[in-house]
Amino acid sequence: MNPKAYLDNNKQTRLDELFEFLRFPSISARSEHKEDINACAEWLSTHLNKIGVKSRLMPTGGHPVVYGEILNPAAGITVLYYGHYDVQPVEPLNLWKSTPFNPIVENGYIIARGATDDKGQLWTHVKAMEAYMATGTAIPVNIKILFEGEEESGSENLEKFVKDNKDLLKADIIVVSDSAQFGQDRPAVTFGLRGIAFVEAKLIGPDRDVHSGSFGGSIANPVNMLCRIIASFHNKDGRVAIKGFYDKVRKLSKFEKKQFARLPHKDKEYLKKVGSPTLYGEKGFTTLERIWSRPTLDINGITGGYQGEGGKTIIPSWASCKITMRLVPDQDPQDICKKLAKHIRKNCPKSVKCEVTIHGGAPAVVVPTDGPWLKAAGEAIKAGFGIEPLFTKEGGSIPVVGTFKSVLGADTLLLGWGQNDDNAHSPNERFAIKDFERGCYSALALIEELAKVRA
Amino acid sequence: MNPKAYLDNNKQTRLDELFEFLRFPSISARSEHKEDINACAEWLSTHLNKIGVKSRLMPTGGHPVVYGEILNPAAGITVLYYGHYDVQPVEPLNLWKSTPFNPIVENGYIIARGATDDKGQLWTHVKAMEAYMATGTAIPVNIKILFEGEEESGSENLEKFVKDNKDLLKADIIVVSDSAQFGQDRPAVTFGLRGIAFVEAKLIGPDRDVHSGSFGGSIANPVNMLCRIIASFHNKDGRVAIKGFYDKVRKLSKFEKKQFARLPHKDKEYLKKVGSPTLYGEKGFTTLERIWSRPTLDINGITGGYQGEGGKTIIPSWASCKITMRLVPDQDPQDICKKLAKHIRKNCPKSVKCEVTIHGGAPAVVVPTDGPWLKAAGEAIKAGFGIEPLFTKEGGSIPVVGTFKSVLGADTLLLGWGQNDDNAHSPNERFAIKDFERGCYSALALIEELAKVRA
Repeated sequence: MNPKAYLDNNKQTRLDELFEFLRFPSISARSEHKEDINACAEWLSTHLNKIGVKSRLMPTGGHPVVYGEILNPAAGITVLYYGHYDVQPVEPLNLWKSTPFNPIVENGYIIARGATDDKGQLWTHVKAMEAYMATGTAIPVNIKILFEGEEESGSENLEKFVKDNKDLLKADIIVVSDSAQFGQDRPAVTFGLRGIAFVEAKLIGPDRDVHSGSFGGSIANPVNMLCRIIASFHNKDGRVAIKGFYDKVRKLSKFEKKQFARLPHKDKEYLKKVGSPTLYGEKGFTTLERIWSRPTLDINGITGGYQGEGGKTIIPSWASCKITMRLVPDQDPQDICKKLAKHIRKNCPKSVKCEVTIHGGAPAVVVPTDGPWLKAAGEAIKAGFGIEPLFTKEGGSIPVVGTFKSVLGADTLLLGWGQNDDNAHSPNERFAIKDFERGCYSALALIEELAKVRA
Repeated sequence: MNPKAYLDNNKQTRLDELFEFLRFPSISARSEHKEDINACAEWLSTHLNKIGVKSRLMPTGGHPVVYGEILNPAAGITVLYYGHYDVQPVEPLNLWKSTPFNPIVENGYIIARGATDDKGQLWTHVKAMEAYMATGTAIPVNIKILFEGEEESGSENLEKFVKDNKDLLKADIIVVSDSAQFGQDRPAVTFGLRGIAFVEAKLIGPDRDVHSGSFGGSIANPVNMLCRIIASFHNKDGRVAIKGFYDKVRKLSKFEKKQFARLPHKDKEYLKKVGSPTLYGEKGFTTLERIWSRPTLDINGITGGYQGEGGKTIIPSWASCKITMRLVPDQDPQDICKKLAKHIRKNCPKSVKCEVTIHGGAPAVVVPTDGPWLKAAGEAIKAGFGIEPLFTKEGGSIPVVGTFKSVLGADTLLLGWGQNDDNAHSPNERFAIKDFERGCYSALALIEELAKVRA
């Protein structure tokens, strides 16, 4: 029996096993679930060993990493699979149609917390490996596995873990299935993510809230002054007006422009999904170009003075805001943070005190579009889905991908088998069995395709 | 015995009576003190009747008004005294050196809740009336009294009460002692208050908070847009940049400029008191001119997006702010609110929805500086304090003064016997016995001086 036949013959078994996996309430953000997290990691590692992946738990500052490997001295390349066995909290429980950790199947969907994010998706790769091992077929690549237990609580210990185990994790390419297809029957390879840079600013005026009648007119109001600074962040064309912000921005490539243009994107539908009155953004770019390949600056939160019902006649003592910028290649997060900080300080009047906190960030990542990896991923998807894949980017950031690039020097293939409306992070999280299945076959094909890269 | 001699002879008695008055915990904002408020009003009305003021309680939608009158058909004018018998809450109790409703005397100060705000101050006028009645001296003016019980909880029922009892309250001049001197041994007559206008604005973008990675760059961020609008409220000279805002602003009079210039104000000391890095305001005006005679616009509060610890990468669904403007003669609150609303709507981009709520306000008030009332008040202070009075204005608003002007058509004399550091609204509220006494003698002289106005 070949690996593909093995997949054909074990459909119910791998679903049953996935259900077992989904029954662990491995909520990483809640300390009361520490035991559940550990039990889930133990179970996963045991399962890997059972199917022939040499696995062990590795401690971190938080929840353990499930590490695994199948080494094949004859193989030309090493593939590192990243995923996470922890899940989001489940509240509000009353909106669930089932019990979050008691998976059910309804209309072809598995409904459970973790179904798509990320237990169901990482399971496709585990089952592909099993198909090789169970049929005695030599795996044509070296396989390494890093399944973490803290993704949903910020992956706080992951960067250190990767750095501390740089040699162990060394790989030629990383594979991550923790995202979505572009749409129904629209499998995609994500070849780039924007980076992020995070800065907080606080302006301080009087040493307490003071009466706006008694003092209004004689001192600067920190809220008004902060708004003035924030207003200076953009020019009227929607471009970021911070000196040097665009200095290192890489222009859109022909490949990008072409791929984006062929995507079944409609501004009208997109706008409906987001609910804003109109679209708005940098002049001269399409929506997809704006969200995937152009840098941005957004205030994520602003606060200052009285915010309750009715009025309170004060000049607030202070006002603050949280600013994140989405970065594109080759912007450097630290450099961009510093440029923003300089802009804020320069535009802050002497009549208020200014405190800027630089939190740093992560750079944008791209998989080279002219290299062999994207092609391999595309072929694997074609094999698994029977559909020509799309090539997309993503506006958000997955910091670990940046870490893999900077520490291990390897690119990451982002192959999402889920859908955007699978309710990751929401009640009734789901994963279509059809997508799960096609993911398994794609994962199997991916091993073969990657093996060809340096064959 | 003449009234002045009566005051000389009854120092301890009037202090003992004031202490009795101060023992009522008449906290208007707390429903559990409703009985205390009523008991206090009853006691006050009984006391007025005892000294010869015909008094009764009059119901309102909330706590009762203590009304009183001494009518003298021979008198040329009618004076309405306004004050309040309710007090602020007393928390935090641990910061009091005494029990708030058990008055003590320390270093020449009466320490108790209500000592200066306003029981102690209104008491000076009551005792001046008593001095006439007890000595059988004909009072040369008609006296009316309106002591309310809801000043510290917003005077919610007062405007309606004044309107409903317009004829009963009809007067030529109003006297209020519920403020402070300009400083130690710096008695003052306040001849003007700024008005106020209150508007709220809310901008709405996406129909929920959305991921700033996935959507950033393609839609307008309501916080950024609100800041842009707020930044447009002022020009770089610190002037309000709303069309027509200054159209009706009355220029500073020679009297104002002269009075302000002679006040013992020092920018450096003022700045120290407020704690801002520097002063800031409209170009071309002094600090006192800015806070007393020029209109302003301040954001009292702004809110939008994530405000907790750390970051949250969202484009907030909405952002809102509370805006108050301080008005000067002859700005109309409704007109100014409308002009601001128009400015906001005009400057709001189509990419966000805009909601403006006009709350209205109260106009500025001034006592004509060329009329007889200010002169009479000045003479009374000179008699009571032995000090030449200052003529000041106040940046805040006292809405009831506007009501008296608009409903009764009468100006108000604001004669504060207290000090700014008497801890009104704070623990250890106090009132110097020396100021209380000089207030009593000034109140007595005021009756004579006002009688001369139309003599």
